[in-house]
Parts: sequence; C-alpha cells; structure tokens
Amino acid sequence: MAPMTAVGEEMHALVERMYPLCRSITGDGVRATLEIVDEYVPLRVHEVPTGTQVLDWTVPQEWNIRDAYIADASGKRVVDFAASSLHVLGYSVPVSRTMPLSELRAHLHTLPEHPGWVPYRTSYYKPEWGFCLAQETLDALPEGEYEVRVDSTLADGHLTYAEHVVPGQVADEVIVSCHVCHPSLANDNLAGVAVAVFLARALAAEKPYYTYRFIFAPGTIGAITWLARNAERIDRVKHGLVLACAGDSGHLTYKRSRRGDAEIDRVLRHVLTASERPHRVTEFTPYGYDERQYCSPGFDLGVGSLSRTPYAGYPEYHTSADNPDFVSPEAMADTLAVCREAFSVLDRNRRYVNLSPYGEPQLGRRGLYDSLGGRSDAKQAQMAMLWVLSLSDGEHGLLDVAERSGLPFDTVAAAADALRDAGLIKA
Amino acid sequence: MAPMTAVGEEMHALVERMYPLCRSITGDGVRATLEIVDEYVPLRVHEVPTGTQVLDWTVPQEWNIRDAYIADASGKRVVDFAASSLHVLGYSVPVSRTMPLSELRAHLHTLPEHPGWVPYRTSYYKPEWGFCLAQETLDALPEGEYEVRVDSTLADGHLTYAEHVVPGQVADEVIVSCHVCHPSLANDNLAGVAVAVFLARALAAEKPYYTYRFIFAPGTIGAITWLARNAERIDRVKHGLVLACAGDSGHLTYKRSRRGDAEIDRVLRHVLTASERPHRVTEFTPYGYDERQYCSPGFDLGVGSLSRTPYAGYPEYHTSADNPDFVSPEAMADTLAVCREAFSVLDRNRRYVNLSPYGEPQLGRRGLYDSLGGRSDAKQAQMAMLWVLSLSDGEHGLLDVAERSGLPFDTVAAAADALRDAGLIKA
Amino acid sequence: MAPMTAVGEEMHALVERMYPLCRSITGDGVRATLEIVDEYVPLRVHEVPTGTQVLDWTVPQEWNIRDAYIADASGKRVVDFAASSLHVLGYSVPVSRTMPLSELRAHLHTLPEHPGWVPYRTSYYKPEWGFCLAQETLDALPEGEYEVRVDSTLADGHLTYAEHVVPGQVADEVIVSCHVCHPSLANDNLAGVAVAVFLARALAAEKPYYTYRFIFAPGTIGAITWLARNAERIDRVKHGLVLACAGDSGHLTYKRSRRGDAEIDRVLRHVLTASERPHRVTEFTPYGYDERQYCSPGFDLGVGSLSRTPYAGYPEYHTSADNPDFVSPEAMADTLAVCREAFSVLDRNRRYVNLSPYGEPQLGRRGLYDSLGGRSDAKQAQMAMLWVLSLSDGEHGLLDVAERSGLPFDTVAAAADALRDAGLIKA
Repeated sequence: MAPMTAVGEEMHALVERMYPLCRSITGDGVRATLEIVDEYVPLRVHEVPTGTQVLDWTVPQEWNIRDAYIADASGKRVVDFAASSLHVLGYSVPVSRTMPLSELRAHLHTLPEHPGWVPYRTSYYKPEWGFCLAQETLDALPEGEYEVRVDSTLADGHLTYAEHVVPGQVADEVIVSCHVCHPSLANDNLAGVAVAVFLARALAAEKPYYTYRFIFAPGTIGAITWLARNAERIDRVKHGLVLACAGDSGHLTYKRSRRGDAEIDRVLRHVLTASERPHRVTEFTPYGYDERQYCSPGFDLGVGSLSRTPYAGYPEYHTSADNPDFVSPEAMADTLAVCREAFSVLDRNRRYVNLSPYGEPQLGRRGLYDSLGGRSDAKQAQMAMLWVLSLSDGEHGLLDVAERSGLPFDTVAAAADALRDAGLIKA
Repeated sequence: MAPMTAVGEEMHALVERMYPLCRSITGDGVRATLEIVDEYVPLRVHEVPTGTQVLDWTVPQEWNIRDAYIADASGKRVVDFAASSLHVLGYSVPVSRTMPLSELRAHLHTLPEHPGWVPYRTSYYKPEWGFCLAQETLDALPEGEYEVRVDSTLADGHLTYAEHVVPGQVADEVIVSCHVCHPSLANDNLAGVAVAVFLARALAAEKPYYTYRFIFAPGTIGAITWLARNAERIDRVKHGLVLACAGDSGHLTYKRSRRGDAEIDRVLRHVLTASERPHRVTEFTPYGYDERQYCSPGFDLGVGSLSRTPYAGYPEYHTSADNPDFVSPEAMADTLAVCREAFSVLDRNRRYVNLSPYGEPQLGRRGLYDSLGGRSDAKQAQMAMLWVLSLSDGEHGLLDVAERSGLPFDTVAAAADALRDAGLIKA
Repeated sequence: MAPMTAVGEEMHALVERMYPLCRSITGDGVRATLEIVDEYVPLRVHEVPTGTQVLDWTVPQEWNIRDAYIADASGKRVVDFAASSLHVLGYSVPVSRTMPLSELRAHLHTLPEHPGWVPYRTSYYKPEWGFCLAQETLDALPEGEYEVRVDSTLADGHLTYAEHVVPGQVADEVIVSCHVCHPSLANDNLAGVAVAVFLARALAAEKPYYTYRFIFAPGTIGAITWLARNAERIDRVKHGLVLACAGDSGHLTYKRSRRGDAEIDRVLRHVLTASERPHRVTEFTPYGYDERQYCSPGFDLGVGSLSRTPYAGYPEYHTSADNPDFVSPEAMADTLAVCREAFSVLDRNRRYVNLSPYGEPQLGRRGLYDSLGGRSDAKQAQMAMLWVLSLSDGEHGLLDVAERSGLPFDTVAAAADALRDAGLIKA
C-alpha cells in the first residue's frame, strides 16, 4: 500500500475522473462510473430489468440523456447540460419547445441564497422536466422566447449496481455500501466511492478474517434491490458501513446503527476515541443514506454510517459547489485510515475462552514473561495477558478487554495471540 | 368543554361548596360530599358495613358529629365546631363535661409556630376526644372552668366510597383516585376532587381508548376497601394516578410508581418535560397518599401521584390556612390540563407492527408524501412516519418513538394514524 | 472488645513482633509468623509438600536461610542479613565466593532514587542469588575483592499456610485472606495480618450469621494452593475480602471484585460512603494481591480487596522504608472499624418476603407504632418499616432498602427485626 498522502492523491484523481459523468439511479452514467471503478478493483456488475419487483418497490424505467439546453433567440445556449450534469433536473422527461421565459420559470430551479451555485434536483417518481441554474444566470436572462430541449429517454431498461468481494477466512460478511446515483457532486458521493475502492485494495492485501463485500449502487432503490436479491445471504451479513460525504474538511461523524450498540457501533466509537481525533458519534435516525434500508426493522443489520460533515450539514450540499475542490486528498486519506483501523479491530475482535480458568496459569513456565524481556512495553503486554485471561469467559471479546483495561486494542490482540499460541485460550 | 379559565372557576366553585362539610373516613360528611360530586358526574356509591374485613384491616365504626364546643363560664362558645370542622379532633369520642382549663389543655391542639392557624388532627384508631384551635385563642383563655361537649356518635354503620366510570373502547382500566376524608381543607384534597370531576367530564367527551375509573374514597382505609372488594378486577388496572394537593400555587410534582418506570411514569415525565412547565419528578416512597396502597408489593400497580406542592411541603398543610383562598382556578386548571395531556398520550400510546418491515415502504406511491403537501410541518410529519416505521417492531410504543425521535407525540401519533390507514402498520 | 485506640496499639505491637522475621513463600519465617498469630487466634496450619500440583502450578522447593553477608577484605560485613531480612534476594540460591566488586555488581539491587533505602527483591522461579542494599552503602564500597556468602537451602519441603474459622449460624462462608510471604515490610502485609487477627476476635464475640474463614498464606502460590485444596468447598464461599496495605496514613481504597457488583462490592461502597470517610472505590484489575486468584474466571468469587494506599501507590512500597514507623495504630484501627462495619452490614443483609403484601398491614394494631413512642427517631423508624414492607418482595435485600430509602442500614435492619418478630415478613 502506498503511503497515505499518495493514496489521498490517487483517491482525488479518481474523484476527478468520475466527476463529469451524469449519474442517476439508472442509466449509462452509472455504467460508465462502474467501468472506471472496475479498473481499480474488479466488479461484478448486475443489471436488473425495469419492472422487477424489489421489496415494496418496482425498478423504474431507465433514464438516459444525451443533451439538454436552454437557448436564447439567437440560438446561444444560456444553460447547457454539456457544461455540468447538474443543469438538468434528474429524470427529466424529454422536451423540445419554445416558450417565453415567463412560462419557462416554473421549470427552473435556483438557489437564491447562493446566487452563483447551481442546485441539484431530481424528480424520479413524478414525470417532470426542468433545469437547474445559478440565480445569477437566471437574473441575467432577458424576457423573451427561449428554446428548451431535453434530449432524454425514459424507457424500459435496467437498474445497474455492482459488487466487489474481498474474500475472508470465514463466510460471515461485512458490507461497505456507497451510493453512486448522484451526478457531478464530489463529496456526495464520489469521495465515498474512492475511499471504498482503496479500502477494498488495502483489505485484499491483508487476508482478512471476514469476507468484505463492497456494494456500489444507486441510493434507496439500489440498496433495496440489493437487499431484495440477497435475501438468502442476509444472515451472513454481520456488520456493515455506509460511506458517504467522505472527503470534506469537517471532522469525522459516525452514525450508529438502529441497534445502537451493534459491534460496528462499538468498534467505530472505540477507534475514533482511541485515535484522539475530534469526531462525533450520533444516534441512528431513519433518514440519511442507505443505512435506512439496511437498518429497516425487518433486517435490522448492524450497519452504521461514516461521514465527515454529515448529510445536509454543509452549505455546498447538493449544489455545484460540491466539486472536486471541496474534497481533499488529506480528508479522504483520513477517512480511509479510520476505516482501516476500524476493520482491523473488527476483524480481530474474537471472544476467547480461558482453558486454565482456575487461578492464574503460570505464565513464566511457558516463557510468556520471558518473551517480553526486551520490549519497552513489557509491563503493558503482561497486563494485557492478565486481562485477556481474566475476561476470556466466552462472554467478553477483545474489544471489551481493551475498553475495560484501558489498554490499546493492538496490545490486547497481541496478548491474545501469544496466549492462544501457548494453548491457554481458544476462540 | 369550556375554556380553561372558565373551567378553573367552576372547579374553584366546587371546592367552595364542599369546603364547609365535616368529612372523615366515615360518616355523613363524606356522603354529603359525594352527593355534590354526583351533581357533576354520576356516581355509584358503595356502603361497606362496620366490621367488614378488608385486606389486613377492618372497617371501623362510623363517626358522626352534630355539634362540639368549648364554652366558658358565661356559656359563650370560645371554640365552636360550627365555625370550622377543623375544631374537633377527627373521630373524637363523645364528651360532655366541665373541667378546669388546666385539665382541658391535655385535649387541646394548637400550632405555636403559626399562632393564628387551627391545626387538623385525628385519632382514628385510638379512642380520644379533643379540640383544635389557634394558639392565639388558647392564649386568650383565662384559667377557670369550661364546659366541653362533643356531640358525636361512634357506632356500627358504614364506610362510604364512590366510583364514576368513563367507558372506553377496551376493558383495560386507568384509575384516578382521590381521598375524600379530610374536613375543611381545600388543597388537601378538595382541589384534587374538583380536578378529578372535570377530568372525568372531559374524558367522557373524547371516547377514550381505556376505561377510566374515578375512585372517591377515604384515605388509606378507603383505598384498602376498594382494593379488597375489587380483587378480581385488579388485573384490568393498567395505569393509575392519585390526585392530591392539586390547587396550590407551586409547580407540579409527579411522584413515580413503585415500579419507577411504569408507562404512567414515562407518560407524566414526557408530558411535563415536553410542556416546558417547571416541575419535579420524584422517586416513589412508601409514604404519601393512596399510591401507598395501590403500589404495595402484592399489587404493585403502575399508579403514580400528581400534586402541585407535595404532601407536607407547604406550611399551610393540615391547617386552617389551607382554605379556598389557598387554591386558585389557574392552578387547578393547570393541573387539569396536564392530566388531560397525559391521558391523551397514554390513550394513544400503542405499539404497532410494521407490515412492510424489509426496507422502507414506498410512501410516495401511497400518497403519504402528497398528503403532507400543504402542511407547514410536512418535513416533521414525514420524519415521524419514518420513525414510526423504523420502531414499529412490536417492542416500541409511540411514546418511545416520540422520545427517541425528539418529535412531538401528537405528530408521531398522527403519523401512526396515517400509516395505519394506509395498511402499513397494525396495532 | 477493647476501645479502638487500645486495639490499634495492640495491632501495632503485633506488627512489631512479626517484623524482624524473614518470611518468603515457604520456609521457617512463615512458620514462625503463624506461631505468633496462633497466640492471638488459634490456627489450623497446613503443610503442603514440594512438588504437589496445585491448579496450574507446582509447590516449589522450600527455602530457608540462616545467614548472608558481603564482607570486605578485612572481613567486615558491609551488608548483613542479620541487620535486615531485606538484604538478601528472596529465594537466593546458596553462594560462597570471593569476587571483585565489579563482578559482584550484577548481583546487587539498589534504589538510586531513594539512596538511603533498601529495596525488596525476589527470584522465586529462576535460580539466582543476590543482595539488596542502600545506594549509599554501595557508593561507599571501594573497588576490590569481597566475600559473598548466602547460607541458604532450597530443598524439598513444604509450603505452609494457615486458617482460622469463626463459626457462623450458616455454613455459607466469608473468606478474609492476607498474604504472609513478605519479609520485613510492615504495611505490606503485617498490618493486614494484624487487622485480620483482631477482626477475627471481634467477630467471634458477635456470633455472626456467616462462617468467617481467615486465610494466612503466601501470595499467589498460597492462594492457589488453598483454592486447589478446597475445590469442594468453594461453592460455600459467598463473599470475601483480601486485606493488604492496611496501616499507612492514606485514605481507604476498596477495589471491587471482578464481578463489579457483587454483594461485598455494594456493602463496602455503602459503608465507606455512609461513614463519610474520604475513600476511593476502584474497579477490578487482574493485578494486585490474591483477589487475582479468587476472582480468576473459573472461580469468579465475590472477593474484593481493602487497602489504604493501594499496591505500589506509595514510594516506601517494597523498600526498607515500609517499616513499623510507616504504619500507625490509628490507621489500623480505622481499617478494622470499616471491616467490622462492612461485615455487620453483610451479615444482616437478608432478603425478606412481605407476608401481608396486599395494601399496607395495619401496624398500629400490632403495636408497631406504639413501640416507637419514646424514641427520638420514631419517624425514621416508621419510615424504615414502610420501606422494608414495600421492598420485601424477595428481590430486594435490606441494603437495597437502605440505599433506596436513604435511611441508615442499622435503622432498616432494626425495622426488619421488628416486622419479622410481628410475623409480617420472613427471610
């Protein structure tokens, strides 16, 4: 693995590559995005036909767009999809008309409070057309006739999502899920995709305990589709993380799973606290990203969500100001580092049983004290052995040991390895 | 229902009507009081014969009093029961004697620290006679001979209590219990009786979910008698509230049931907190009013107690200063309002099961988003629907939803109604 | 029992008698110590042969020492075991050689940060020889040849420990355990031994409920030996306390059992808090004294540890400065007093069942109010009766009653006695 600063730059380069594409909940923009991701980690791409029943929902028609613009009487494009995928209302039905500005206004979306920014708007389930533009642009338009054209198609097709699996020692799975349905928005969620990609590569190099499944899918309908098509596999999903808004300059925020005390919740809280990063841990709410679906009461999976500044918490959210300059290599590298630390703890958080639970076993006889001889942290390592022995009653995991003892998780895990190798504990 | 200020005046008028009567744990004063109450809400009056075994107790002889006084040598009544029912020791045995003041003093009760006030004293289970008077009155009495006369009877008769039932949709009951055994004391407990009466009238207008049973009974022995005679019905009592000291100017105080986390405890805490009233919530103690009996360990009912300034917490407590001026229409109206809010929450605090628990159901398809279109609180109402869906797993009630989400209970309950009507949840 | 100040002086005199002896985990120093203890409370002494398997350990060879010194070229003893048992490394193998100081240094232990103090060092399980001396003494030694001699024997023999039992009304046991393996160190642990001795004498005078078993044994291997040889009796051990560092001038420290909320933990916390002594209650750690063994996960006994300044928490710890001047009669008397208070609570902490649980029983009829007539604490005693009745549901003990009511434990226990005598509750 390259050093973190280099990884940050690589992630930022990936964000910049994906940025111009016009993604939506279906269509070729998603496919093109997944093709880029596939260059980094091999993907299995799934195409689910329009009309497929998925839980309470139905896969919608596929939307594709080739061009869209508003042109003035001289034919000059005053709003042009080619300049930014945000300019067209997501899932706009096709239109080709000429109309006065007064009539056109009902189809125009701006952000008066940020007159230079273009908002991001969609209308997935109600057929409409529209354009998003800067308030400044709108203010500069003279009254008069304009040509409006959206060259889009809404037709039976497919919903596209992809998976990448890092095989583990056990079939139990950890899922990492990112939404890939937003057009030219960097923090929401190209940064999350980039962190997921480099997280997958890092895990592959480490032969993890769990099997890690990365899901790249459109928000809501994509997660629902994945859940609907994996009903028989859900029992294997032991933990999970939704990655979103992973690259802005804010502190990290972990949002707990609906359970509130799932193992992933405890791991993230521990890692964020132990690392002494400024951070927030917030309670579950049934609003946000696809944790809404994974944590719906029928599934109730132990899936939390890691962001920097969370959903809707920054003014640039869902605007053209969420561009590649808004996310930094350093912030993405920091998010990635926490994910790696968290999965490193999760992966080693075994419960052991002390095989010599009556009195302390004689560690000296087994060379377990000697083994610490030259180490500067010998005292801490010895305490970790005593703590692991004390709490290895089948009810406490190594994270419990670390939290109760106040010792670093790595020290505790190393002590457990030594005791296991000495035959004193077993998983 | 009349506006609150008018209701407050009506309650105060009721207090003033009941005030002069000489109530005790038995006797005609209780009957006369219940006759007045019956003018407001129809009562079923129960007469339980002297000697009846009730739990560990026995219904005592009935006490009635016609006259009582201390007269000086000139025949002038210096202490006169006709002026205040407090002047005679409750349950005084009859006496008709002449004796010097020096001998009489052993039978006189005063409050030296409040020389103008007459104390309230009783001797239910030990045969005694006595008078209560102001220290000032006593100080003004010259030594000499006095005629003392208590024209009372202690004879086999009955203990009297009454019930009023507001029928609900289910047989499960909420009991509201007030003691009616205190003579001319306004806050303790005529204010409680008045609030109970108008609470019953308000509930009757609302077709409540629960059946609400109002119990007007003498303290301790009355509650014990009710419990003894309703052993087969106790299982129906799901919640309850003892009303006492409901009209003084202090903040509201809710005393938890013995369970400490009964539903009524959670409801009162929620309503008092959400209403932003200054208030106190105190832990259960086995002393106070008839929650002592309802919460005795064999019953352990979910019955709390609502007061303003609690039991013995104000200097006027159990003195002639607890007169109708001590209680206000505004304070009684406030107590009534909190009772109504609390029962409104309790009545709607259902547990629902999400019938579409795998992923979020598509609310838009069912018009549940559209229905919010014109509302100023559309966003809050939508969040409430998501919260109800998320927590409707059969283990969480709507109060849980309100508390965990931070949304107003009314918003949550309305969301649950909409979801139930759409067939997405069921109770 | 003599007044506390006298008891303190007696305990200090006992510390001074035991102080000069050279104790270790085996050998005649332990036997001589136990002979002194036996003069105060009769002991049953156990001798366990070398080589006996005890849990994961093996009883080691017995170590005895007659003489040890370092002499200079003139034959003058510059370090002499006769002056202090600390001067020889515990379990030193015999040696009789002449060597230059440069070579001898590898066998010398000092405390450079306290140049006037002699450290305490051992090498139980690795054959070594050595001397402990003041840094000042070492600094004054000229280079040159020295005679070094340790006249010790390490040979098959026995491990010695002893028990004293105060019989109780029931066979359920409370163990009190003190380590007796340290040589001339007063606070660690002669003060603990002295407190245990006088605690045993005090308990014997009180006909306690529990059977109290005092264990005087070498640290670690002694406790392990006791546990190994009492496997069939362990189920009887309901509670326990390890006494160590019981005589210094610091505040009392109670270290919880591994369970954290064992009854002994609650009792000590209650007694220390109720007594308004400055004190600390610390969480369990698997390091310290023999609570490590009693609380190992296979046994997981409710055994806490009471110290003043705990293990390694004072600079004099494991040095010659931990001499009889370091411990005071007052401090030992205070530790003893807390032990007596704690066992007094523990001994009376019964769970009762209210035999009249429906409504309040009529206390007046049974004379339970009258009995309080002349008492200044009549109100408190009455409240205690109501609380005991309220919580006597078989799930709450008298300590629960005391803590929930805020009443003194003695008042609660007296109320329970009165109610039990009246037939209202039973254990």
